[in-house]
Order: sequence, then C-alpha cells, then structure tokens
Amino acid sequence: MADVRVIEVKRSIFEDNDADANRLREELKQEKTFLLNLMSSPGAGKTTTLKRTIAELKNEMKIGIMEADIDSDVDARAILETGARTIQIHTGGMCHLDADMTRQGIREFGTSDLDLVVLENVGNLVCPAEFDTGSTKNAMILSVPEGDDKPLKYPLMFTICDVVLINKCDTLCVFDDFDKEAVVERIHKLNPKAEVIFVSAKTGEGFDAWVDWLRKEVTEYQQGLA
Amino acid sequence: MADVRVIEVKRSIFEDNDADANRLREELKQEKTFLLNLMSSPGAGKTTTLKRTIAELKNEMKIGIMEADIDSDVDARAILETGARTIQIHTGGMCHLDADMTRQGIREFGTSDLDLVVLENVGNLVCPAEFDTGSTKNAMILSVPEGDDKPLKYPLMFTICDVVLINKCDTLCVFDDFDKEAVVERIHKLNPKAEVIFVSAKTGEGFDAWVDWLRKEVTEYQQGLA
Repeated sequence: MADVRVIEVKRSIFEDNDADANRLREELKQEKTFLLNLMSSPGAGKTTTLKRTIAELKNEMKIGIMEADIDSDVDARAILETGARTIQIHTGGMCHLDADMTRQGIREFGTSDLDLVVLENVGNLVCPAEFDTGSTKNAMILSVPEGDDKPLKYPLMFTICDVVLINKCDTLCVFDDFDKEAVVERIHKLNPKAEVIFVSAKTGEGFDAWVDWLRKEVTEYQQGLA
Repeated sequence: MADVRVIEVKRSIFEDNDADANRLREELKQEKTFLLNLMSSPGAGKTTTLKRTIAELKNEMKIGIMEADIDSDVDARAILETGARTIQIHTGGMCHLDADMTRQGIREFGTSDLDLVVLENVGNLVCPAEFDTGSTKNAMILSVPEGDDKPLKYPLMFTICDVVLINKCDTLCVFDDFDKEAVVERIHKLNPKAEVIFVSAKTGEGFDAWVDWLRKEVTEYQQGLA
C-alpha cells in the first residue's frame, strides 16, 4: 500500500479567524469545491461513516478526504483502502483546526479538481465547534453509546452543525435507554434547522437519507456557482 | 431534590500551571484530601462509574464530587441522587480545567473534611491531558464503543494516567472487533506503569478490582501523611 502523505500544519497567524474563514470559503467557490467539516467525539465513527459514504458517491463525484489528527495516520490508511485521495494533517497537539490550518491542508492536498472534500476534524466536541474552518457546511456524528444527553452538555457543537448523524443505531438493542425522540428534541431546541439522520455506518441503515442530503447539498452548491 | 450548587470558574492568572499544580497538591496534603482527576471522551461513562464507585465506598470514606462541564448540571443532579456531596463547576466554554480553576472549585466546595474528592473533568481526550490539575492521581475511562485504536490517536491522555478503566465491557457482544489484548498492549507501550482494568459501570463487572485500586491509593496516601 502506498504511504500516507502527512503534513504538519502550523498555528494560524491571523487574529480574525471568522474573516479568514470567509476568505477560504470564497477561494473554494472559485474552484467549485464543496468542503464538509465533519466533527464528533473520539470513536463516534467518523472514518467508518466516510468509508461507506465514499463507496456510495465515488462514481458520481470526485472526493478527497483530509484526516486531521494529533498523531498517527490510522484513519488516512483506512481511507486509502477505499481508493479515495487522502492526506493526513497533523495538528501538532492542537485540539482543533482553524481556517488557516485548513487552508494549509487544502493547498498542500490540491483540491481544485475535486467536487467534495471532507475534513475529518480532531475527535473533540468542544474546541472544533469554536473555530470556523471555512467549510461550506458543518456535519457532526453523535453515536448512540455516548447517550442522548450530549446536546445538553455540548450545546455549541449542535448549534453550529447543518446536519447531525446519530450513528451506531445497530446498537440500540444494548443501549436501550437512548431516547431517539428526546435527542431530536434537544438538538432542535438548540438548532431548529439541523437535519437529524439516524444511521449505522456498520450496517448501512439510514445511509440513503444521508447520502441524499450530501448529494443535494453538493449539487446545489455547484449549480449556484455555475 | 435540593438544587445543585453551580460555580463559574475563571481562567487561571498563573503562567506556570505546573508549579501551581504542585502548590495545590501540597495544599491538599495539608488537609489529607486525595484528589482524583477523572477524564474521558464525552459519553464514556464517567458519571455512571462514579455513582457505582460512591455506592461501594461511601461507608468507608467521605467522598465529594466536583462535576466540571461547559454547560448544564445534568451530571451533578445524577450524583446528588447518591447522597454524595457534589458541586457543579462551569468552565465558561473552556475545554479543560487547569490547577487554579481546580483550586477555585476546591475552595468553594470546602473539602477539608473529605477523604476523596473526584474531579469529573470536561469530556475531551485532548486538552485536559495537557493541564496538570494538581490531582493526586489521574484516571481515565475508555469505553469499548470508542474502539481499541484510541491510544494510538490520543497518546498523551494515556501517557499521563495512573489507571485506565475500559468501560462498557457488557457491550463487547456487539462491538466484537474490540481487541482487549491490543488495547492493553497499546496503553502499556505508552505508559508501562498504567493499571488497566476492564469494567462495566452498568453491570458492576470488574468493579472489585477498580474499587480495590482506589481504596489502596487513598489509604496509602493518607497513611504516608500520618
């Protein structure tokens, strides 16, 4: 197997991350690349979700994956097996990516021929929510084993996401105190527009709805720029 | 039910957190209070583990719980039900506690009559690992659904912990790709002295070993100060 390309990104020099994130969004529009910022707790299933998403969409659009991690290239190696282009970003111990760190990854990766780039952010429900990466849309994964109370405890993350995937629904049999209605209600109280989709990246349950959402977003983005 | 007492802690004014953490450890020795810093990802089971731990030890020692959270008092309310003393610390959006924030909680809580204080840190495998809270010992919980690769991806957290609880072992039936030997090997490669204990806070499996470890640590600490 080919080696994973690893780049080390440096802390941003920009004081105003929001303004820089808007600049990066404009730069991405020039190349018609849709950037999805995917966030979650450690172990919620970001990489498994991406592997299945790539399999569903790779014949329709050109996809690239940027794997951000404090250390290791475990995830990028897993993505390489799908045949998708991937790069591993090491954050040098930083617990999140800001817009300039994302740009460093985008430039090194070379994304102008890609329709969809997914940034798999550092596994963390706190810090990544505070930094706009310049992404076109924000997605997060909450996994059933984490519990239905997480919107109460990490409200900002749920507030900034356009779509929330509730993953590992195949384990509802053992996590039988997880209240599906309550979690949707808690998310919509914070963010009435959030799309909430129940999935299992292991079995594929719910993936039609998720892939439809993503396809529609990418298509409308590119048509809007035509 | 009585209301939960909530305090808002402020960012530390000390530049040298390590030195301040050592000062707090000395202050705690004066009152013979053992401080356990408990860390994990969101939803790994810190609060459920604490509830069962309190039930096992409350007739042997005086226990208090400091619940740190960005928002909400969900966890402190759960602890109140056990009859243990508890306080909710709000971090004002901060993703971790440093030694001075911990001290603010300790002082407000009033811990001099307590044998064991557990600080339930913010759910996050990244930032809390970087800040010594002044605790006597560090503990973390990795839950089976998160996967056996977490020591590869969040190495610092596993390096600084004296004990690692592998929780939700009752779900190994559905997470059958979780490799118990591999996770122990990965933890010990980073931290050969770490105690690794497999438990289920739901069923009580493995709790004898965990409670024995904690009882021994608190006893030796207090005897060493006698």
